[in-house]
Amino acid sequence: MKIQLALDRLTIEEAIAIAEKAEQEIDWIEIGTSLIKEFGVKSIKEMKKRFPNKFIVADIKTFDNAKYEFEMCFQAGADIATVMGAAPAVTLDVCVETAERFGKKVMIDLLNTLEENLKYIEQFDNVVVCKHISKDQQEHGGKAQWVSLSVSGHQEVAAAGGIGIDTLAELKKLNPDVLIVGSAISKAEDPKKAAREIRKAWEALS
Amino acid sequence: MKIQLALDRLTIEEAIAIAEKAEQEIDWIEIGTSLIKEFGVKSIKEMKKRFPNKFIVADIKTFDNAKYEFEMCFQAGADIATVMGAAPAVTLDVCVETAERFGKKVMIDLLNTLEENLKYIEQFDNVVVCKHISKDQQEHGGKAQWVSLSVSGHQEVAAAGGIGIDTLAELKKLNPDVLIVGSAISKAEDPKKAAREIRKAWEALS
Repeated sequence: MKIQLALDRLTIEEAIAIAEKAEQEIDWIEIGTSLIKEFGVKSIKEMKKRFPNKFIVADIKTFDNAKYEFEMCFQAGADIATVMGAAPAVTLDVCVETAERFGKKVMIDLLNTLEENLKYIEQFDNVVVCKHISKDQQEHGGKAQWVSLSVSGHQEVAAAGGIGIDTLAELKKLNPDVLIVGSAISKAEDPKKAAREIRKAWEALS
Repeated sequence: MKIQLALDRLTIEEAIAIAEKAEQEIDWIEIGTSLIKEFGVKSIKEMKKRFPNKFIVADIKTFDNAKYEFEMCFQAGADIATVMGAAPAVTLDVCVETAERFGKKVMIDLLNTLEENLKYIEQFDNVVVCKHISKDQQEHGGKAQWVSLSVSGHQEVAAAGGIGIDTLAELKKLNPDVLIVGSAISKAEDPKKAAREIRKAWEALS
């Protein structure tokens, strides 16, 4: 299991400072959508510059203009970029093609993705699919459920949305390869310790 | 009919220079998603600073984190911000609430929005709904069709996607209040003249 530290609603400097603290206990570093939309591609460049050997996730949530957005992310140093599963099929195709051309990866965010697109998504190799309970669903919409849909065996699975020690047991059922954790690490007094405790608790559930 | 000039795949300086040329013949100025994702909220701030009296559209394509993203746009000077119709209903609700709180507006982009969400969207007043053929559908996916779904009478309708002189007759059937025009103006030798010709051709069709 990998831990992806999601950094959102922060300045670039704050995000880097938190990543530095947690570095040894996390696997992937995510530049959250809010950082990209607030500060632009600079947020990706500065994170990669500081962590050249970490796997960097650009949560750009592409819905259109896939070639331009994905090239921008990969040229800035991202190792994987995200596209919405709800986007038109052609956009998913272009994301996958662009990632292959760069030798990079695609994460497909399944938030609000309907059956028709889910079937389409099954065809892709070399993608990570992300089962996602959104911030708005967590903060404004009451308790949302994890997508229980099965995914192709050849795809890695990530899970995101309010993940912390308390939600690990429920998450275990999804059998994710990547746990995307935000505030449970980024807002902890000791981000390194928080990440280590999540990993330990996860392993104890195995 | 209003013309919204969409500025995409440009630097902020290039976008401002094109808007200056077309200024007198256009109504709304759109900071395209690519500018926001490449340069951040600075792209909105600089455009509003240069055009304090123009109606500024932030094409932020929100899919989550609606309060944060919409507040960011409005605080930067946007008069309207976009949300994807395909997003969770709660996200649409939060966009509408945030816009009301700021006395600003929401544009709901109907790209790949399914029936269930379209019905939900009918309830909103004070929104502009945008019938949208995406860049990827235009450039990679062959000829896409305009969404033919009817919208509530109290909502303004915008249309976007490869709009130029040649496509106006087909567009007329949608009866849009706002024509979103990108490269037909931004890539024209004389953007002002191009915008004026689109308006004249549109009026000639009435």
